[in-house]
Amino acid sequence: MSKQVQRGRPRRAETDAALMGATVELMREKGPMGVTVEAVSARSGVARATIYRRYDNRRELIEAAIDPVVERALPPLDLSLAAKVRWVLEQVEDLFDRLGAGTVAAIIGDSDPEFTGALRDALERQVIALRMQIQSEIDNGHVGADVDPDALVGLLLGAYLSEVLRHGAPRAGWVEGAVDLLARAIAVAPPPA
Amino acid sequence: MSKQVQRGRPRRAETDAALMGATVELMREKGPMGVTVEAVSARSGVARATIYRRYDNRRELIEAAIDPVVERALPPLDLSLAAKVRWVLEQVEDLFDRLGAGTVAAIIGDSDPEFTGALRDALERQVIALRMQIQSEIDNGHVGADVDPDALVGLLLGAYLSEVLRHGAPRAGWVEGAVDLLARAIAVAPPPA
Repeated sequence: MSKQVQRGRPRRAETDAALMGATVELMREKGPMGVTVEAVSARSGVARATIYRRYDNRRELIEAAIDPVVERALPPLDLSLAAKVRWVLEQVEDLFDRLGAGTVAAIIGDSDPEFTGALRDALERQVIALRMQIQSEIDNGHVGADVDPDALVGLLLGAYLSEVLRHGAPRAGWVEGAVDLLARAIAVAPPPA
Repeated sequence: MSKQVQRGRPRRAETDAALMGATVELMREKGPMGVTVEAVSARSGVARATIYRRYDNRRELIEAAIDPVVERALPPLDLSLAAKVRWVLEQVEDLFDRLGAGTVAAIIGDSDPEFTGALRDALERQVIALRMQIQSEIDNGHVGADVDPDALVGLLLGAYLSEVLRHGAPRAGWVEGAVDLLARAIAVAPPPA
C-alpha cells in the first residue's frame, strides 16, 4: 500500500487498530478518566466524526477496546495443577499491568461508573470461562470436589491486588508463594506431610 | 466536668478523639484527598492552630488517625485453623470498610503518596505481627511447614480486594469460600478425601 493511501484514507481495520491502541494507551497512562472521545481522537489521529460513525458513544468505544485486553487463553489442559495456577496468575498480572494501576484503582473506587461497568462485564465473562474450566477439573477428579470455583477465582485475582496494595507493584517472585498455597488448596490428594 | 469547661477548653484527650474521629470520617467518605488540616478542623470544630500545636503536619495527623484503625487483635490461639482464617478475613473486611473504597483505591493508584506511605507503614507493622503468629503456628506443627507466611498474608488481604474489584462490595458469604480454600492450603494433615 502506498504512503499516500495510508495517510489519506486508512482502511477500516487500520483505523480500528489505531483507535483501540490509543484507548488502551490512555487508560494505562491516565486511568479511565483519561479516556474520552476527544483524547482518543487526539492520540490516534482519527477524526472525532469518524469515531462516532463507528461507536455510538464513549462506552461502546471502551467496550471494544477492553474486550480483547481482558479476554485470555485458559491454561492448557495438559499442564500440572501448579502450572495451571501459575498460568492464571501470570495472565492476571499481565491483564492488570496492561490496564494500569490507575484503572484498577478507578474500578475499586468506582470513580467512573460507565467504565467500571464495561470492565466488570468483560471480566465476569472471562471469570465464567475460568470457572467452567475449574468445574470440569473437579468433574475429572483433578481438583478437590469441595472447591468453590468462584472462591478460587477470587483468590487468583486477589493475590495480585494485595501485592499492588502493599508494595505498589508486584515483587519479583510473588507468584511462587501464591502458586504453592493455591495448588495445595485445590489438590485432591494431600501433599506429602 | 461542667459544660462550660467542655466547651471552653476541652481536655487534650477529648480534642484528640475529635481530631481522630474527624480524620477517619473524612477518609472514609472522601478518600485521602478529603483529609486536609482545614477539612479536619472544620469537621471536628478544633481550630487549625490547635491542630498544628499537636501535629507538625498533615502526615503526622494521618499517621495518628490511621494507626488505631489498622492495628488489629490477632486470632486467639485456641481457635481452630479455619476459625483463625475467618477471624483474619473478618478483620480485613472491617479494616477496609472503615478505610472506605476511595481510600483503598487511592492506595492502589498511589494518588496521594503521603497518605499511601502512612497507610502502608501501618499495614506492614500489622502484617509483621500476623506473619509472626503464622510462623509460630508452623513451629508448633499446626500449619504446614512449607507455607510461606507472607504469601498467606497476601491471599488473606487479596480475597477481600477481589470482591470489591468484581462486585463493588463483598457479597454475603464471601468469607466462607475463602476460609475453606485457605484452611486447606495451610493445613498439615490433609482433609478427608
